[in-house]
Amino acid sequence: MTNAREVKVGVLGATGTVGQRFIALLAQHSFFVIHALGASARSAGKPYSKAVNWKQTQPIPSAVREMVVQECVPEHFKECAIVFSGLDADVAGDIEQAFRTAELAVFSNAKNFRRDPHVPLIVPLVNTSHFSMIPQQQRLHSPPLKKGFIITNANCSTTAVVIPLAALERAFGPIESCIITTMQAISGAGYPGVSSMDIFDNIVPYISGEEEKIEWETLKILGGLTEGDDGLKAFDMHTKQPLRISASCNRVPVIEGHTECVSVRFARRPPPSPQQVREALQAYTSEAYAIGCPSAPRHTVFVHEEPDRPQPRLDRDYQAGAGVCVGRVRQCRVLDIKFVVLGNNVAIGAATSSIINAEYAVLKGLVGA
Amino acid sequence: MTNAREVKVGVLGATGTVGQRFIALLAQHSFFVIHALGASARSAGKPYSKAVNWKQTQPIPSAVREMVVQECVPEHFKECAIVFSGLDADVAGDIEQAFRTAELAVFSNAKNFRRDPHVPLIVPLVNTSHFSMIPQQQRLHSPPLKKGFIITNANCSTTAVVIPLAALERAFGPIESCIITTMQAISGAGYPGVSSMDIFDNIVPYISGEEEKIEWETLKILGGLTEGDDGLKAFDMHTKQPLRISASCNRVPVIEGHTECVSVRFARRPPPSPQQVREALQAYTSEAYAIGCPSAPRHTVFVHEEPDRPQPRLDRDYQAGAGVCVGRVRQCRVLDIKFVVLGNNVAIGAATSSIINAEYAVLKGLVGA
Amino acid sequence: MTNAREVKVGVLGATGTVGQRFIALLAQHSFFVIHALGASARSAGKPYSKAVNWKQTQPIPSAVREMVVQECVPEHFKECAIVFSGLDADVAGDIEQAFRTAELAVFSNAKNFRRDPHVPLIVPLVNTSHFSMIPQQQRLHSPPLKKGFIITNANCSTTAVVIPLAALERAFGPIESCIITTMQAISGAGYPGVSSMDIFDNIVPYISGEEEKIEWETLKILGGLTEGDDGLKAFDMHTKQPLRISASCNRVPVIEGHTECVSVRFARRPPPSPQQVREALQAYTSEAYAIGCPSAPRHTVFVHEEPDRPQPRLDRDYQAGAGVCVGRVRQCRVLDIKFVVLGNNVAIGAATSSIINAEYAVLKGLVGA
Amino acid sequence: MTNAREVKVGVLGATGTVGQRFIALLAQHSFFVIHALGASARSAGKPYSKAVNWKQTQPIPSAVREMVVQECVPEHFKECAIVFSGLDADVAGDIEQAFRTAELAVFSNAKNFRRDPHVPLIVPLVNTSHFSMIPQQQRLHSPPLKKGFIITNANCSTTAVVIPLAALERAFGPIESCIITTMQAISGAGYPGVSSMDIFDNIVPYISGEEEKIEWETLKILGGLTEGDDGLKAFDMHTKQPLRISASCNRVPVIEGHTECVSVRFARRPPPSPQQVREALQAYTSEAYAIGCPSAPRHTVFVHEEPDRPQPRLDRDYQAGAGVCVGRVRQCRVLDIKFVVLGNNVAIGAATSSIINAEYAVLKGLVGA
Repeated sequence: MTNAREVKVGVLGATGTVGQRFIALLAQHSFFVIHALGASARSAGKPYSKAVNWKQTQPIPSAVREMVVQECVPEHFKECAIVFSGLDADVAGDIEQAFRTAELAVFSNAKNFRRDPHVPLIVPLVNTSHFSMIPQQQRLHSPPLKKGFIITNANCSTTAVVIPLAALERAFGPIESCIITTMQAISGAGYPGVSSMDIFDNIVPYISGEEEKIEWETLKILGGLTEGDDGLKAFDMHTKQPLRISASCNRVPVIEGHTECVSVRFARRPPPSPQQVREALQAYTSEAYAIGCPSAPRHTVFVHEEPDRPQPRLDRDYQAGAGVCVGRVRQCRVLDIKFVVLGNNVAIGAATSSIINAEYAVLKGLVGA
Repeated sequence: MTNAREVKVGVLGATGTVGQRFIALLAQHSFFVIHALGASARSAGKPYSKAVNWKQTQPIPSAVREMVVQECVPEHFKECAIVFSGLDADVAGDIEQAFRTAELAVFSNAKNFRRDPHVPLIVPLVNTSHFSMIPQQQRLHSPPLKKGFIITNANCSTTAVVIPLAALERAFGPIESCIITTMQAISGAGYPGVSSMDIFDNIVPYISGEEEKIEWETLKILGGLTEGDDGLKAFDMHTKQPLRISASCNRVPVIEGHTECVSVRFARRPPPSPQQVREALQAYTSEAYAIGCPSAPRHTVFVHEEPDRPQPRLDRDYQAGAGVCVGRVRQCRVLDIKFVVLGNNVAIGAATSSIINAEYAVLKGLVGA
Repeated sequence: MTNAREVKVGVLGATGTVGQRFIALLAQHSFFVIHALGASARSAGKPYSKAVNWKQTQPIPSAVREMVVQECVPEHFKECAIVFSGLDADVAGDIEQAFRTAELAVFSNAKNFRRDPHVPLIVPLVNTSHFSMIPQQQRLHSPPLKKGFIITNANCSTTAVVIPLAALERAFGPIESCIITTMQAISGAGYPGVSSMDIFDNIVPYISGEEEKIEWETLKILGGLTEGDDGLKAFDMHTKQPLRISASCNRVPVIEGHTECVSVRFARRPPPSPQQVREALQAYTSEAYAIGCPSAPRHTVFVHEEPDRPQPRLDRDYQAGAGVCVGRVRQCRVLDIKFVVLGNNVAIGAATSSIINAEYAVLKGLVGA
Repeated sequence: MTNAREVKVGVLGATGTVGQRFIALLAQHSFFVIHALGASARSAGKPYSKAVNWKQTQPIPSAVREMVVQECVPEHFKECAIVFSGLDADVAGDIEQAFRTAELAVFSNAKNFRRDPHVPLIVPLVNTSHFSMIPQQQRLHSPPLKKGFIITNANCSTTAVVIPLAALERAFGPIESCIITTMQAISGAGYPGVSSMDIFDNIVPYISGEEEKIEWETLKILGGLTEGDDGLKAFDMHTKQPLRISASCNRVPVIEGHTECVSVRFARRPPPSPQQVREALQAYTSEAYAIGCPSAPRHTVFVHEEPDRPQPRLDRDYQAGAGVCVGRVRQCRVLDIKFVVLGNNVAIGAATSSIINAEYAVLKGLVGA
């Protein structure tokens, strides 16, 4: 694993919550090397250790401690093959656009481009096939691009549930309807995020925009690509077999790890048994792992047999939070099958997804030459 | 309000979690007067303040502080018209039976008799009509009883959800199916109950037996009474219009107040709109309040308009926790309507229900004389 | 209790955390009547229920729900005899000054005037004798005032500890040194205050400026008034018998109630025994209670005998949080005596102190005619 | 690192909280190899994965998953050079004695032998010199032992504070008095340990026996060994220069990591400055690290400069919790210097200390042969 394999990367929004996670993960990556850090004008010019209010449980990696933070403009990132964006939504749109135009490959955790008809929304354990949209994204760009593109990953609560849903659709065909109730960790709201006065000894049964994200993003991710008469590809939003999703989102007093109770109804009658579902989930593998993405988990879905698992505190760090854990697979008296899924919102639900997406792009030769 | 109205009551399991709540509530009751306290042999003979490990936020009521705790045998409770049972399930069966046989009216929070075909399972804001089973319960007892009977109230998580469901059925006719995901407070497990190591910064997506209780008890409570050819009444378990319920129960790090996300499908097509549902919930009243039960809440269902309510910490003490709060009434993409309900598990979900049931029985002349 | 006794009051900073507490308390007060509400320009003109993000566990009192919020300028408060200030420190200085100049009696919870040499810093269960500074404060004002003055109450963590210290000095003479370690609730930081990410499953061993407040305010409160050759009074800062105080302040994951571990050394040798200390604490009474202030607690210091009390969750609401609870009085191997004190930071530690101070001023005839 | 270095070890109390930690640590140890597991008769005969209620955040190590649990009798541990004891105090005394008599080297986390005059109480970053008591322990045993001995490590709250105290005494000479207030994590009480109802949103200002342990154990650890006229060694309990310690212990809602506020007074006048103290703490090194114990931390005391550190959630896992973190070193107005120390109660405060002690014994040739 020598320099031949070394890929220089930048991190946008490097001082924020997601940016800190990117840095913690990238600092020990086997082939990505942090080369530039971007943040707001207020931080620019300072060494990273002075600019950041570091909130991770490991110390600031020595490789970035003294690295001088730059403003988020492409010229400071020219030598990077890839930039990871942990930018806030209020600035991510313009900045990511500018980086793409400057022929950089942008892997973004922000929501701004998720609904763009030419930007793939990729959960790397599910729909890496959507990378095939990149040439069209580049061709239709004005001016057309050679290397620049934007890939987004999904919202954290979507990511956790879409992985087992993908596994079930692969094994048993289309899901017809799905009711999801989430119990989401406070870290999902960033920093300072949720006031302690709002969530101590409390549940907040509402997260602005979250239910819509789950209901919409899941369709884009699980859906396929169609090609129109004009030769243009489009995301089909699972319309060939309509999938109705109803989500209820709750904030709970847990630091990390989103727990979701899910009931599904399959198109296929009779539906699979709980045991068949367990086996299908356990057997599900990702292409990302198959081709060797170093951050992709061996067990995409770990299935617990104990009746009281998964639990966020005990299970969120399994495989560094890169897979999901499912438990309590059983019959649902209203739909067909119900289960509990746990996804680590700050790992597979955020930075880890972007990184696996980038690893996939590198291994597939989709990133600059 | 003189002695004419004074009703002597006893509390079984007086040192336990539910027993302490009974005492805190009864000590300031307008017509119930605590006359005897029962607990295990270990506590018997001690003044209450020495026997109990008091865990309430108000001090031990002075009326019981020096009252000597008795063993749970009927002879010590002869002068009571009513006994409230906060006994644990492992002893409640035999003791409550003995008290009934001794011609005492038992209002129990234990689960032992909830599935008895002659024991009403009464949520006092819903199905006080089931009191009509008492004469049959007494008649079929061996030997037949004159005054003794057992009334149970429901499990705390059932109670919270069955109140809005009853309101909806009254307004819109039968509900056909219902998916419920609960987020239940630690106090629901008693004391010491849940280990802090299990629930800090965590969710436990499983509560033993809880989902079955919700799925079964709801049918008994919402169902009617049928009369067979033999003239015997029976609980019909909502079988005239089958109701399918699917519950997923979770323990969350909240001290008090069960929050439940509920989706329902009505038999009636088209279903009511969210606004109609809100109005029906708000308009719902209980017979218990109508006839003047002092502990029955004025607002059986309080409907929140804010998008982020109800919340357990802010709303659980409204009306002393005797009603429920509903919020986020909106359309469900899979069933018809979804909403969030909050019920105070230690108030309407436990002792308060027993007390309102007893108030109702007194006001209706069903007790003693 | 008729109109003769009714006193119109205003609340400044009415939408903030402390302001909400003032309103919740004043709405059920026996002689104060809320007449005007002041907040920032952003809130002014709106009915209170629209202006406030109400975070109390009881609903907004009906008396203020539709009251229109005003800007914090004296002309809107002309009919008030008293204004309570829950303003933030960054604006409290100018506004409170303006209200005093407009001849209003200001009872402030803000820190701005606590170190003013003519403004008493009064913990109403301790040093109401400092009200005697008011005439001088008015006389030295430019222009001299007839009715206007400012009274401040202490920081929440100071308040909790200064009450037992005052009790001990009254009984046993001067304290020589005192080491205090606080464990302070998140509500002490207001709203949004402490990020949940900073305090979940965590201790923050630092609260900016807090240790200095305890160390300084305690001296002003426990000290006396001296009169100089020029006939001017001054706060003596306990200098006749120097008192050394060392405080270590910690933020802990508790919603309400500051717990403090205190060790003291008395000047007197031999020092009192733990039993003498317990008796002195229990016997301590306040002048505020003696003269009939309705919000003053009967038990200024409640002394627990159980080894594991006081505890914030169980004891913070005793007497509506208007007194303090002390427990674990025992010998200290380094100083003389150590104990634990619990004070409700949002009651006696904030709004309740201001209100008792105002009650005292009314009952003593110190508030305008 | 071959078999030459491999040391077979057993774990007593293998299914308990401390036992699980021993296993998690030993499973990845460079030279200890888990050879036998002991637990109660109820667990004996079962594979470990069936006997244990595993509560760690990593999965059960594969090396022990199928290992059959034995009763805690020496014959099952004959091939072990060392046994680690995570036994509860109610059984640890007899069992550890039996293992010592059977010529096994016992490294115990239990309190039973800590006050034994011939058993060293060793915090491995402080007083490995006390290992020199072993020959006398063996010689005075009846019958005299060749290889068997017992070494205990300290209580978790003692361990955290004694490390910086040792560093200070090494640099500045004797400490004269010390006031300690602890804020201890729930994991310190084992499992199920603290009821969630007792500690949610709460502080319990009392831990049975804990203050006495700190006050006594610290003296044994920081003290030296004296030799009497009879040639017998004895622990001098720091009597050459009396050290007065006063501890106040609190349980706080934190999962892991004990935070302690400490004030000290030195014998030396003038005392060292805060900066000198910081430097001395940072410079302090352990013999255990110096001789190459693999689990000994490089930084015995990590000194934080930020004003709000250390914090348990952020700092407890630094160096796998094998060192301690100190912050807020500053002057104390009553004693000389005060600071905050954080020690990971389940790492250096428990199993990690035993393991470093055993590593030290192996490297020094004190074990087996």
